[in-house]
Amino acid sequence: MTEDREKTVDGLSEEERDARHAEKMKKKKAARDKILATKTIEKGLVIVHTGKGKGKSTAAFGLVFRAIGNGMKVGIVQFVKGKWATGERVALERFPDQVTITAMGDGFTWETQDRQRDIAAARAAWERAKAMILDEEHDMVLLDELNIVLRYDYLDVAEVAEFLETKPEMKHVIVTGRNAKDELIEIADLVTEMEMVKHPFRSGVKAQKGIEF
Amino acid sequence: MTEDREKTVDGLSEEERDARHAEKMKKKKAARDKILATKTIEKGLVIVHTGKGKGKSTAAFGLVFRAIGNGMKVGIVQFVKGKWATGERVALERFPDQVTITAMGDGFTWETQDRQRDIAAARAAWERAKAMILDEEHDMVLLDELNIVLRYDYLDVAEVAEFLETKPEMKHVIVTGRNAKDELIEIADLVTEMEMVKHPFRSGVKAQKGIEF
Repeated sequence: MTEDREKTVDGLSEEERDARHAEKMKKKKAARDKILATKTIEKGLVIVHTGKGKGKSTAAFGLVFRAIGNGMKVGIVQFVKGKWATGERVALERFPDQVTITAMGDGFTWETQDRQRDIAAARAAWERAKAMILDEEHDMVLLDELNIVLRYDYLDVAEVAEFLETKPEMKHVIVTGRNAKDELIEIADLVTEMEMVKHPFRSGVKAQKGIEF
Repeated sequence: MTEDREKTVDGLSEEERDARHAEKMKKKKAARDKILATKTIEKGLVIVHTGKGKGKSTAAFGLVFRAIGNGMKVGIVQFVKGKWATGERVALERFPDQVTITAMGDGFTWETQDRQRDIAAARAAWERAKAMILDEEHDMVLLDELNIVLRYDYLDVAEVAEFLETKPEMKHVIVTGRNAKDELIEIADLVTEMEMVKHPFRSGVKAQKGIEF
């Protein structure tokens, strides 16, 4: 920036680059504004976070806090017990009037190794989830790790998809967990796949406070 | 479940399926426990959230809250001004002793159309980021949308990568934004790519409170 007048590698002076940049950005902004003007519908979304990478529940957790910050009320059903540890709980407990958390009765499948108990717990959690989605109190409902329960066929995906498709119009529902089933993706409004590019486990790093829990 | 004794489609009775499931899950748990036992290193991670999908900043925001819930202190530098709106701010303001937020001085590129001003603002924000990473107060520093600034070459990626590679050992640093540069991915510990599978914009749905902002 001290050599404004000199030609740079691409044969343009800094001033020419600035002018070109301003022109390009102006066009970009116009195009963006035009697109935004066509987006007028407001509706409750069915959001799915899936994929093998990290960030599925964490991004859902971020959405929950964004909603809380906007004064909305949020219901959370944890289909895998014990996955959300101290960090989330402590932060959520600061907003007792806005957040309701329900955890599925029993531990996760490879801890319990009891399929019938897991099926019963999944069914109970789903009944609770439906009630939260139907009530008028909550603006957003997070069904954390529901995909895992669906993957093991502890709940019928057709039943879940049909319920979500006919949910109250303005209610936002977030579903997390790897291996989201096609039937769920089909009825969802927003689906993001978190892909793992690089993971610290590979270098022997353990799960750490503030990152994994 | 009312017909326990009958054979199901896969030729197994419910009881046989339960037994097989218990055995499978037991093996899974043993394998998982064995892997976890080898993960012993604790270190501050360089985490990158990139990709064209949603959830990059939102997942970072979730990590921030998880850290806050664990009593950690977090510094945030926003390289794109005005991207985080009411929702995040209000929720973060409940934790004034644990969170420090700095926003890059000026608006985003296609709003300002002034390249030199953006370069100066990016440089100032990076200096602030370095100070936060070096100080002992913060356990985690979020560099939100740094990738965008690097993509426009407003900052030198080699300089950024070198700094992050030699950062204080226990400090966690999160970088978000699409198009993460290879030099950054190279030195990162954990990289997640958020892929867009389905987006509500396609059906004319506008950005909504509690979801986009």
